[in-house]
Amino acid sequence: MRSTLPNTTMAASIQVCRLYTSGRGRFFRSLLKNNVCFRRKFASKTVAAKVQTTTTKKETKDETKSFSTLQEERREQAERSVLISCPPNISEMRFLKHVSRHGNIKNCFFYESFGIYAVVEFSEKDSIASLREATSIPSIQHETAVPFKTRLLSLKANNLNLSSSQPSVQCQKQTTIGVKELILKLSQEDSIDQQLYSLMEEYQLTEENICLRFLVCSLLKDIAAAYFPECIIRPFGSSVNGFGKLGCDLDMFLDLDAVSGRNLKQVGGGLSLEYQMKKMTSERAATQSILTVIGECVDQFGPGCVGVQKILNARCPLVRFAHQPSGFQCDLTANNRVAMKSSELLYVYGGLDGRVRALVFCLRCWARVHGLTSTIPGAWLTNFSLTVMVVFFLQRRSPAVLPTLDQLRDLAGPKDKSTIEGNDCSFVSDFSRIQDQTNTETLEHLLQEFFVFYGNFAFSQMSINIRKGVEQNKPESSPLHIQNPFEPALNVSKNVNATQLERLVTLCQESAWLLQQGGAGGRGLVRDTPWGLAALLQPSLSQSIKMKGRKRKAREPASERIKGLLDSLKSSKAAAGVAGDAANGRNGSSAKPH
Amino acid sequence: MRSTLPNTTMAASIQVCRLYTSGRGRFFRSLLKNNVCFRRKFASKTVAAKVQTTTTKKETKDETKSFSTLQEERREQAERSVLISCPPNISEMRFLKHVSRHGNIKNCFFYESFGIYAVVEFSEKDSIASLREATSIPSIQHETAVPFKTRLLSLKANNLNLSSSQPSVQCQKQTTIGVKELILKLSQEDSIDQQLYSLMEEYQLTEENICLRFLVCSLLKDIAAAYFPECIIRPFGSSVNGFGKLGCDLDMFLDLDAVSGRNLKQVGGGLSLEYQMKKMTSERAATQSILTVIGECVDQFGPGCVGVQKILNARCPLVRFAHQPSGFQCDLTANNRVAMKSSELLYVYGGLDGRVRALVFCLRCWARVHGLTSTIPGAWLTNFSLTVMVVFFLQRRSPAVLPTLDQLRDLAGPKDKSTIEGNDCSFVSDFSRIQDQTNTETLEHLLQEFFVFYGNFAFSQMSINIRKGVEQNKPESSPLHIQNPFEPALNVSKNVNATQLERLVTLCQESAWLLQQGGAGGRGLVRDTPWGLAALLQPSLSQSIKMKGRKRKAREPASERIKGLLDSLKSSKAAAGVAGDAANGRNGSSAKPH
Repeated sequence: MRSTLPNTTMAASIQVCRLYTSGRGRFFRSLLKNNVCFRRKFASKTVAAKVQTTTTKKETKDETKSFSTLQEERREQAERSVLISCPPNISEMRFLKHVSRHGNIKNCFFYESFGIYAVVEFSEKDSIASLREATSIPSIQHETAVPFKTRLLSLKANNLNLSSSQPSVQCQKQTTIGVKELILKLSQEDSIDQQLYSLMEEYQLTEENICLRFLVCSLLKDIAAAYFPECIIRPFGSSVNGFGKLGCDLDMFLDLDAVSGRNLKQVGGGLSLEYQMKKMTSERAATQSILTVIGECVDQFGPGCVGVQKILNARCPLVRFAHQPSGFQCDLTANNRVAMKSSELLYVYGGLDGRVRALVFCLRCWARVHGLTSTIPGAWLTNFSLTVMVVFFLQRRSPAVLPTLDQLRDLAGPKDKSTIEGNDCSFVSDFSRIQDQTNTETLEHLLQEFFVFYGNFAFSQMSINIRKGVEQNKPESSPLHIQNPFEPALNVSKNVNATQLERLVTLCQESAWLLQQGGAGGRGLVRDTPWGLAALLQPSLSQSIKMKGRKRKAREPASERIKGLLDSLKSSKAAAGVAGDAANGRNGSSAKPH
Repeated sequence: MRSTLPNTTMAASIQVCRLYTSGRGRFFRSLLKNNVCFRRKFASKTVAAKVQTTTTKKETKDETKSFSTLQEERREQAERSVLISCPPNISEMRFLKHVSRHGNIKNCFFYESFGIYAVVEFSEKDSIASLREATSIPSIQHETAVPFKTRLLSLKANNLNLSSSQPSVQCQKQTTIGVKELILKLSQEDSIDQQLYSLMEEYQLTEENICLRFLVCSLLKDIAAAYFPECIIRPFGSSVNGFGKLGCDLDMFLDLDAVSGRNLKQVGGGLSLEYQMKKMTSERAATQSILTVIGECVDQFGPGCVGVQKILNARCPLVRFAHQPSGFQCDLTANNRVAMKSSELLYVYGGLDGRVRALVFCLRCWARVHGLTSTIPGAWLTNFSLTVMVVFFLQRRSPAVLPTLDQLRDLAGPKDKSTIEGNDCSFVSDFSRIQDQTNTETLEHLLQEFFVFYGNFAFSQMSINIRKGVEQNKPESSPLHIQNPFEPALNVSKNVNATQLERLVTLCQESAWLLQQGGAGGRGLVRDTPWGLAALLQPSLSQSIKMKGRKRKAREPASERIKGLLDSLKSSKAAAGVAGDAANGRNGSSAKPH
């Protein structure tokens, strides 16, 4: 069993092995003899399917694997995996029977991306060699194929009558539901706390999706490793920090630090052998050089890689492309240790308390729906900035929900030591060394308080500082100042202009007010009326602020306007014509989630 | 002992292992115990140093390895070799002592190219792995090096006092002497036959130079094999056809035919696995794609590779660059089977009779000196065309010196079967199956007759055809028609215009006349007066033809002009002020060379 996403109640269900019982028992039992274990996560339509556990938070948190341990496990797992495009109407049984002749299959799942694909993880790496020996170059393309062999394969059905009456394979989801559908779904929940957990479950990366991301990195590494046999391609950012949303881009960097031969101890005689290497004028030039070749190779040979752009003159040179077999939009850059440290820090914070991820997913969605963040780089707040603001807010609670970064630094072990460009970036990686916090506020309450906190924050004078866990005097005059935790001279949100900041503040105030009203009167008379978090995600919230065009003064509630909103909610529900029962307007329980 | 260049008297001396006897005996004897064998070819200043053998021609010819056997031996040898740049003043003993700790050295030689280099051939391929483990990445370049490791290394002397009083290493020659020096040298020979052999010895590729060419191919293969593990980079043309001149370009092609996985027998079940590969629109597109990536890699990473040009839109897409460590100008193209067959055919013809190579080297030099051929592509005759003309001439002798291509085809064994784009390109590769020819004409006589033959050839009606060994009616109206032996519809010399053809004919006539005069009166009274072949190589021969500017009618001797030339030869010798003895005006002996 691989590690779970930390502190989610869905996690337990992911660990459950489910076997078909109808008519395939014998085959599957024989597979089990051969040590095949299936995981199947049936996309649940309601939150009701999730398994509630009652284990204490401490046990689960302390069991959470450290970031590097988890990354290493996933990296190694990907090395034993292949990606196979399947013919339509193939049955799982037939598929597995064919592939498992090369070795024990440890895991296998299917998904859709321009056709059906299977990720097959073998128990032994040797099985891949065996599989490749039986793999041919496509015959129609003999003359015109670039004979570049990877672990991306196609299973062809030759003269095979694949009856469409056979059940097709069960596919894992790769995308999220739309906002409208989400709002409907959340409106069916019993409490605002449940709404947040439901949103998180819909949006968070699934285990399978994470496996697939690591596999794409592994496939790309095979390309780069052609020239740098010891290199590794590592995913960073949303794909690994615990806050990634299904469908987010895959950010990767090329790690050449493991390349051997540096500082080799020379054995006597006064003579020593060196590799002749092309001299570069700078590290940047070396990076551009390497990415040029890898980018060219991906462009020319990379099966399924399209839309390749080599953006080598950017501040951070990168190669960008779409990987059709996985559906991911990919960015490859050179080793960026600070970015990796940031990813790890977010992973740690997300793992310390189950409410953290739920809050962040919720607020990222809220920010996105209301146009506070954008996929286009510009003056908008970034997801990273927003996440740091959430962390800071949770540090400022009494008692604090999260420790400060300095506190995490002080808990660092010898292996956690990390200095990057003169800055101490150390912090503890072992969850068991971090003491539990004692805060017991509900998600609903925290959400409300978040809006109040930032609706009233002294942005004009103060800087957000998660190292210290208290606001500091702003060192420079950007509208929004969030100190980069690893590069103290930098402002993470320097790009944010006054207009965007004001929109943020206004939306916080509006949202605080809306929530305070009991979320449009609780569940309301009619089922499916957007309420609680669902009401907060209505586009009309930010639209009404925009449409009025009034320059809003900070800290002035807009009761009239909000009342108008509430009315429009009721009428839109009536227009939708949804009948339903009355329901209790229940608030979230005070029990802390895991 | 590797195979020798066929049929040269110098060949025997190359096979001789020479050991230092002064003061290093003990070390070298110990190396011998470890199975190290040195070859050292001391650049001889006179032809006198060459070893005359008396073995019959038949034995030597039949022992000559087939082209593919020889290529394979050299390819495999290169795989066990490394290229090491040496510090100045390093002694051979110290060098070998350091390097031989990684394994038995089978061979080693030094040469100069922007510094001193050593080619080290190990007995076992494993020794290279051992050597690489002890090789470090240059420390000054840690940050800015592209850590691309190849078999091109540098030996550094750390804090080592390399006294300049120690004998530096013996370097093998990589370049030829200039024309003026050659003329002086040839003038010291005893006969025209000896002059031709002397020229060949000066110009032909040495064993070491050929090793180095194969090593560069092997180094380049390591780059290409990163993506196509089963690919091979093969030298073709002058580097392997037996007629290459020291310093000639290194033409290589990328052979992907060995890539496995085509036409794989699929094992049952109706399902089969294929690699997903990027589809190309055509074979040309695939070639351009592959060369793009390899070219980019050579440009960005290839140590010592400079001036890289990707000329992908040419009829034959290629990557061109200069390889500084070897000094070679390199051209890499995609697999060109016809070009390889042509190379092999020339190799066979050159190996059948010792006079062939001597004649071809002589005439290539003559053509170059007089501007009949050029390094710039254009209307000039190419070396290949000229060589085919020599072959044809030798086929037309009575008795013939060389068999026709059709005769060689009829001797082909089952392994020699070769069809390229519908054309039968088969010919025998096993020398022992080819009967000796009985012609015994001297080189001097053959040279003379060559000039007469082409001074009088009916170019306007007839085509040169080495398949049939007799001239054929011209199928089209190019001034010069030489049928491509492997693509019968093509004219090898289509590029040659009427002007160039006329220059060729005129020069043949002039040269015939000059030789007929006993080569400027034999050796003449004064030593070092250019005579025989040396006289033919005087630029004044072609210059005088040009300067007169007269439109010369074909077949009209220019006795007056030639007499003027003879006078100018005598006066230039007097001007050079060289004293000397009278010498006999000896003609070549009638014994056939080996």
